[in-house]
Amino acid sequence: MAQNKIMVLHGPNLNLLGEREPGIYGRLSLSRIDRMLKEEGLALGVAVDCHQSNGEGELVDHIQGARRRYQGILINPAALTHYSYSLRDALVAVELPVIEVHLSNIFAREQFRHHSVISPVAEGIICGLGPESYRLGLQALVKILEVSKRD
Amino acid sequence: MAQNKIMVLHGPNLNLLGEREPGIYGRLSLSRIDRMLKEEGLALGVAVDCHQSNGEGELVDHIQGARRRYQGILINPAALTHYSYSLRDALVAVELPVIEVHLSNIFAREQFRHHSVISPVAEGIICGLGPESYRLGLQALVKILEVSKRD
Amino acid sequence: MAQNKIMVLHGPNLNLLGEREPGIYGRLSLSRIDRMLKEEGLALGVAVDCHQSNGEGELVDHIQGARRRYQGILINPAALTHYSYSLRDALVAVELPVIEVHLSNIFAREQFRHHSVISPVAEGIICGLGPESYRLGLQALVKILEVSKRD
Amino acid sequence: MAQNKIMVLHGPNLNLLGEREPGIYGRLSLSRIDRMLKEEGLALGVAVDCHQSNGEGELVDHIQGARRRYQGILINPAALTHYSYSLRDALVAVELPVIEVHLSNIFAREQFRHHSVISPVAEGIICGLGPESYRLGLQALVKILEVSKRD
Amino acid sequence: MAQNKIMVLHGPNLNLLGEREPGIYGRLSLSRIDRMLKEEGLALGVAVDCHQSNGEGELVDHIQGARRRYQGILINPAALTHYSYSLRDALVAVELPVIEVHLSNIFAREQFRHHSVISPVAEGIICGLGPESYRLGLQALVKILEVSKRD
Amino acid sequence: MAQNKIMVLHGPNLNLLGEREPGIYGRLSLSRIDRMLKEEGLALGVAVDCHQSNGEGELVDHIQGARRRYQGILINPAALTHYSYSLRDALVAVELPVIEVHLSNIFAREQFRHHSVISPVAEGIICGLGPESYRLGLQALVKILEVSKRD
Amino acid sequence: MAQNKIMVLHGPNLNLLGEREPGIYGRLSLSRIDRMLKEEGLALGVAVDCHQSNGEGELVDHIQGARRRYQGILINPAALTHYSYSLRDALVAVELPVIEVHLSNIFAREQFRHHSVISPVAEGIICGLGPESYRLGLQALVKILEVSKRD
Amino acid sequence: MAQNKIMVLHGPNLNLLGEREPGIYGRLSLSRIDRMLKEEGLALGVAVDCHQSNGEGELVDHIQGARRRYQGILINPAALTHYSYSLRDALVAVELPVIEVHLSNIFAREQFRHHSVISPVAEGIICGLGPESYRLGLQALVKILEVSKRD
Amino acid sequence: MAQNKIMVLHGPNLNLLGEREPGIYGRLSLSRIDRMLKEEGLALGVAVDCHQSNGEGELVDHIQGARRRYQGILINPAALTHYSYSLRDALVAVELPVIEVHLSNIFAREQFRHHSVISPVAEGIICGLGPESYRLGLQALVKILEVSKRD
Amino acid sequence: MAQNKIMVLHGPNLNLLGEREPGIYGRLSLSRIDRMLKEEGLALGVAVDCHQSNGEGELVDHIQGARRRYQGILINPAALTHYSYSLRDALVAVELPVIEVHLSNIFAREQFRHHSVISPVAEGIICGLGPESYRLGLQALVKILEVSKRD
Amino acid sequence: MAQNKIMVLHGPNLNLLGEREPGIYGRLSLSRIDRMLKEEGLALGVAVDCHQSNGEGELVDHIQGARRRYQGILINPAALTHYSYSLRDALVAVELPVIEVHLSNIFAREQFRHHSVISPVAEGIICGLGPESYRLGLQALVKILEVSKRD
Amino acid sequence: MAQNKIMVLHGPNLNLLGEREPGIYGRLSLSRIDRMLKEEGLALGVAVDCHQSNGEGELVDHIQGARRRYQGILINPAALTHYSYSLRDALVAVELPVIEVHLSNIFAREQFRHHSVISPVAEGIICGLGPESYRLGLQALVKILEVSKRD
Repeated sequence: MAQNKIMVLHGPNLNLLGEREPGIYGRLSLSRIDRMLKEEGLALGVAVDCHQSNGEGELVDHIQGARRRYQGILINPAALTHYSYSLRDALVAVELPVIEVHLSNIFAREQFRHHSVISPVAEGIICGLGPESYRLGLQALVKILEVSKRD
Repeated sequence: MAQNKIMVLHGPNLNLLGEREPGIYGRLSLSRIDRMLKEEGLALGVAVDCHQSNGEGELVDHIQGARRRYQGILINPAALTHYSYSLRDALVAVELPVIEVHLSNIFAREQFRHHSVISPVAEGIICGLGPESYRLGLQALVKILEVSKRD
Repeated sequence: MAQNKIMVLHGPNLNLLGEREPGIYGRLSLSRIDRMLKEEGLALGVAVDCHQSNGEGELVDHIQGARRRYQGILINPAALTHYSYSLRDALVAVELPVIEVHLSNIFAREQFRHHSVISPVAEGIICGLGPESYRLGLQALVKILEVSKRD
Repeated sequence: MAQNKIMVLHGPNLNLLGEREPGIYGRLSLSRIDRMLKEEGLALGVAVDCHQSNGEGELVDHIQGARRRYQGILINPAALTHYSYSLRDALVAVELPVIEVHLSNIFAREQFRHHSVISPVAEGIICGLGPESYRLGLQALVKILEVSKRD
Repeated sequence: MAQNKIMVLHGPNLNLLGEREPGIYGRLSLSRIDRMLKEEGLALGVAVDCHQSNGEGELVDHIQGARRRYQGILINPAALTHYSYSLRDALVAVELPVIEVHLSNIFAREQFRHHSVISPVAEGIICGLGPESYRLGLQALVKILEVSKRD
Repeated sequence: MAQNKIMVLHGPNLNLLGEREPGIYGRLSLSRIDRMLKEEGLALGVAVDCHQSNGEGELVDHIQGARRRYQGILINPAALTHYSYSLRDALVAVELPVIEVHLSNIFAREQFRHHSVISPVAEGIICGLGPESYRLGLQALVKILEVSKRD
Repeated sequence: MAQNKIMVLHGPNLNLLGEREPGIYGRLSLSRIDRMLKEEGLALGVAVDCHQSNGEGELVDHIQGARRRYQGILINPAALTHYSYSLRDALVAVELPVIEVHLSNIFAREQFRHHSVISPVAEGIICGLGPESYRLGLQALVKILEVSKRD
Repeated sequence: MAQNKIMVLHGPNLNLLGEREPGIYGRLSLSRIDRMLKEEGLALGVAVDCHQSNGEGELVDHIQGARRRYQGILINPAALTHYSYSLRDALVAVELPVIEVHLSNIFAREQFRHHSVISPVAEGIICGLGPESYRLGLQALVKILEVSKRD
Repeated sequence: MAQNKIMVLHGPNLNLLGEREPGIYGRLSLSRIDRMLKEEGLALGVAVDCHQSNGEGELVDHIQGARRRYQGILINPAALTHYSYSLRDALVAVELPVIEVHLSNIFAREQFRHHSVISPVAEGIICGLGPESYRLGLQALVKILEVSKRD
Repeated sequence: MAQNKIMVLHGPNLNLLGEREPGIYGRLSLSRIDRMLKEEGLALGVAVDCHQSNGEGELVDHIQGARRRYQGILINPAALTHYSYSLRDALVAVELPVIEVHLSNIFAREQFRHHSVISPVAEGIICGLGPESYRLGLQALVKILEVSKRD
Repeated sequence: MAQNKIMVLHGPNLNLLGEREPGIYGRLSLSRIDRMLKEEGLALGVAVDCHQSNGEGELVDHIQGARRRYQGILINPAALTHYSYSLRDALVAVELPVIEVHLSNIFAREQFRHHSVISPVAEGIICGLGPESYRLGLQALVKILEVSKRD
Repeated sequence: MAQNKIMVLHGPNLNLLGEREPGIYGRLSLSRIDRMLKEEGLALGVAVDCHQSNGEGELVDHIQGARRRYQGILINPAALTHYSYSLRDALVAVELPVIEVHLSNIFAREQFRHHSVISPVAEGIICGLGPESYRLGLQALVKILEVSKRD
């Protein structure tokens, strides 16, 4: 049976990770996180591809591209979390399990970050754990795929 | 006198039409709808050009490009309906009659879909009729052009 | 097979059409619109009956009377659009396809006109196109009846 | 160096797990989850104690008791999530890292479940993953303890 | 000591300046404003680069590109002012002084224009003065750079 | 001593009972409910008269007519529950004990049905029990009359 | 020159005046108020006709009937004040000066009485003065007609 | 066939009944109400057990204990009506028919008492009738059990 | 018996009357209005004193000074209408009948003018009638004094 | 005449006083505060009993127990301040004068702490003064008892 | 060491104390309260100066004048409590400890009195205790000065 | 041609500038700012007069006095920005161009400072630039006068 493939999507400004507000987002660069996720994927028996974009349309394109070629999506929608109904509709349209992750605890920051338009269409949400949010999100996604395979 | 030209614009995720949530959006693909609109345009004596994009900026570019080259815009802003003040400003800026259409009845779905930031600057709104929303929207646009020509 | 029959309902103050605020509602009288709809119905192969009332209760009576005798309802609820849950309940109760129409673009007028209590129970909504709203609404209704007949 | 100890707290009605609304909460009983967490703890090198209570006051007592005797708290506050400022104050008072978990995706359920009064004072939040929410929460807590030990 | 460089960013639809709704936005074209700003910059001893884009992602790219190469950002976010948390996050991330400008008085227009998601992260805001908003914004930015240099 | 008389009032669309949405409103027709109430009245020693109307004004007329001729009112205001301050004022004006009943549990349905403008001026409210709501409401009214007679 | 004619309209439940809650509405019956207004009209040189109805539709009919036959409308919309957009639309449609009156001070009563949907389309509002509200409203209307005649 | 058993639950402060604010809650003590309910149960052929507690957790325990041992729950949640999502979750979890009762008309009292978090999960609600609320609630519960037995 | 004395109070900016926005406030100067009121007072048998101030504190002083020396207050609070709880408290404190008047129809202007903090403590409110608002307000006050004298 | 007795009640988490967030709540332990209050009581001629509980139900029990045995209640409801309508109802039920105190200034902290459901039923509120809030609250209570004794 | 000086400030309408609504504000005149505070100050070893004004600007002047000449401010802002951001800014600017007092329990009165714009910048708040609110406020202020002196 | 004259108005507490919260408002005293503005005025060819007041009424007097004697107003309304509709009405009444300035960025401070009731009636708004806000505001005003002179 073919190996499962997971698409990891990083939203706007996450390419600055490690440099931008390290007090909030930590000191790890995005490429380090991507490498960590690929390794973790290796250990878990899934292939992991990672993309970052500052453009909402481009992210929607990536999500649409995941249909048929990936079995799950791990997404940190960054600032788009709070208003991008386009991302939301794309995630629903591709009919794949989605895990939403955030590096920081969005509920402990500014009021506008407390509401996610993505959460209602995700399987699960993990936030506040820094790069661990991603790693645990990957584990969760793999678990979901295993369970659904068994059914 | 030169033939009128209508630009049809499809917002994010509409390229997945026919595959995505057919219970809500129907089974017709976007290319089928475009073809139907071109034929309807032929019957009504107007030329119809169709564009789809997942990117808000690209859609704004299309709208701006319609100035002087088209006489009316038929737009389904999809998820951007609910927050894209950029689209709204572009539609106002080009000073063409605009008809806003939706395949589904947005007022019978999630709360966030009940509010359109586009409607206040459109001539008319048609929703809930599936591909017929587009076809009737085209008719309405042609009617508006006829009336304004007569004045 | 028996010909389909459509009931057209006009809400409060629409009997003043043509005289009342022509800048917003146009110069066509209601009887002219009714005649146009009957002719359009003739062309589309459906019979069209039209009623206007200023009374909510009377409109509810009309809607109830449509059960079993009509196959669809085309309604412009006028001011009742914004608060008449009685109309809404009646429309749901008779289990016929309903198209809601408005002459003006209600989303470009006073705040209180932006919310319709009828829309969530209608098949489709058409507004802002003057008498064309009615004509296209009739077409939409006929299309719905054709489709459901085929199924 | 002494082994880290984690307190797991389950809020009201979680004792019915496995029997209550399995469509939402899954078919695993609470004792099965507790056993799984203890085993996972064993693997991660931490001791895990589990408590459930239907009483807010009793849960506050448990949290207060965790001071000095535990190094972290993993809590599923259940219905208390949405109004128990007493729990919140207790969690702040004991000055331990807290991970908030939920079996279901609270953002995909009734409106009142979308707001957590606990989240702003937790390190991280994990929800929607069934018993995996707990297991990953335990991992996260262990990671936090490791990092803080290193500092 | 090297000359300071200022990046000027124009948001969606500002490329239509001079043609679009001149009653609100004035009759000066964007290229005229850019030229005026470059001349003003010359007089003030700073280099000025100007960019316009209709795409949120592209604007975020520009802002990110300003890090290390510019000493300040003068931005008219246009319609994005009211919802683009992506722009906001980008502006915070690059850690440069930001002045937000608007040609029209956004507080004297539609309700939705009264709220800016950018203002809380800008140094200063100037609006309602037509092209003067830009010119004074440039002066303000130069002043801020002078003061911070002195410290 | 003269026998007490109770007026039962049914609001808009209740005449369709038994046919309309039986999943929500049950399969009993209104005439069956009226007959049941008259029989129950007989058993309780009160005379029961029943009226239904789709018109708010007509219902107000009925309520006003109850003054001096009835000793209590049992009302199911149906959709008018949520906005008819006219009904409310009429009920207050006639100074009779009022019991408000609903067949369905209005608090378990759409948001707009959660608020009753009638409840603050009723003695008691009974809802969710189907025709039993009426029967128990009648009992409650009889009890109130007995108690007040005794005082 | 023909004598001016004023239509006085009383909304729902005002026919109970004098009997209903005299602490709020006073002890004068409606017929007494009507007689007082006719006499006042005599003194002011205008004819006064009075109508009361509990039905919104009937009141709309009356207002529509006032076109061409009356020069002004004095209306106490009673409970309909707070939700009848039908009345409002009718009053706008007939293009006559309108004075809105209330016997009680609606701003000193329940919250829902603080908002009038009629006031924005009336010339003036008088409330809280008992029957004097009507008498002064009549004077105001006569004054408006005199001024407009002079212009 | 075994006799049906009903659990009656009284929330906080109801143990003070008869002494506490008799103007609102009446002069009957709780033990008198319990006795009346047991007698009524006898007449109706059901066994009735009554519990009162001031503790939310204890009430949740009682509800959970009703599973398998009772066939229905009659509950007056008192002040917990307005915020106890724990009670609500417990009532849903035990999957028994629930009738919510209140002695006073909660809609005619302070604003915060107008909203019940329990009502959406109850079969029916009865309020404002003093001890009769309980008695009629018991009847309603018995009726529901009879009907479901018949099905 | 001593003649009644009425204090007329004009709030901020009313001293500019006749010059300021005549489209809204009319062309009569304040001194002309004061003279008209004194003459009307003469006719009605009451003495009228008039004061204008731009200062809230000074207006409160005037109101306090009215105790024991005046029998009623006619006030146009102008902009203070919408926020001056100090004025409100002063009007309550002096225990005199108060009529609130406005030249323009405040309900037909900006949203913030729709709410008066003064109205709940006034006997009556008259607005939208230009200087007639004052004249009728004076009549109303005189009537109130006559009635209370008779009692 | 018998000596007055005051019950002092401390809500959830106050048992941690002195250890918990000393920056907000001060360094005095609860037992120190209780001792101080007993001494102050001695000086004021009243007996003081102190209780703390983390359980809402237990606090309600304490309040109910105060009836007939105490003459006043001094309560710091802690986190329950913001949602415990049970506490509120209990305080009303026992019909004793109540003073609500808080160590910190709740109006200078998080938004949710700005609203107290207890304040409307307390005689007085004292907050922000650390242990002095309690001491002054005790004085206030003694004063109230003296005054009511004199009446 | 020089004696501490306290400024007591009374807001609008408090000069009417004793005469104005004694049911709410008590029967003590303001001069009596001032005398009582001076005596209490004598006992506590601080000098007390008292000022009352109906003018917001004058109160701001007094507060500004307190800088350097007083060590603390005891203020009853009366109606200004609810909107005077000028008072608030003045109190912050002078950097003295501030105690806010109210004679009545503002949380048990009209809705608009429940919010104080002053409280967030005061050290402590005391309300509902009549003149005792002032006396205890003075004690609290003296205590704060003692503590800060010691530090 | 006569020289233009500009009135500069400073609202409450700005007289404390330089001493009050220098972290927010800077270290420049108000007299220094006034001197700087007069010098800038000299350079720009306009006369500049400056006034500060803590009283709303006095500020309104100043604005009214500017009619006919000044050609423009530069105003920092300070705390009055957020509620003084009197100031707003005065600014509209005098029909002069108005520039609103703030030293700090009001959108980056407390919530209540985010809304200005003055902005909708100003030509332009400048904030966040310290004394530069004033200097640039003066430039903007001069520019407006030049442009309007030319027209």
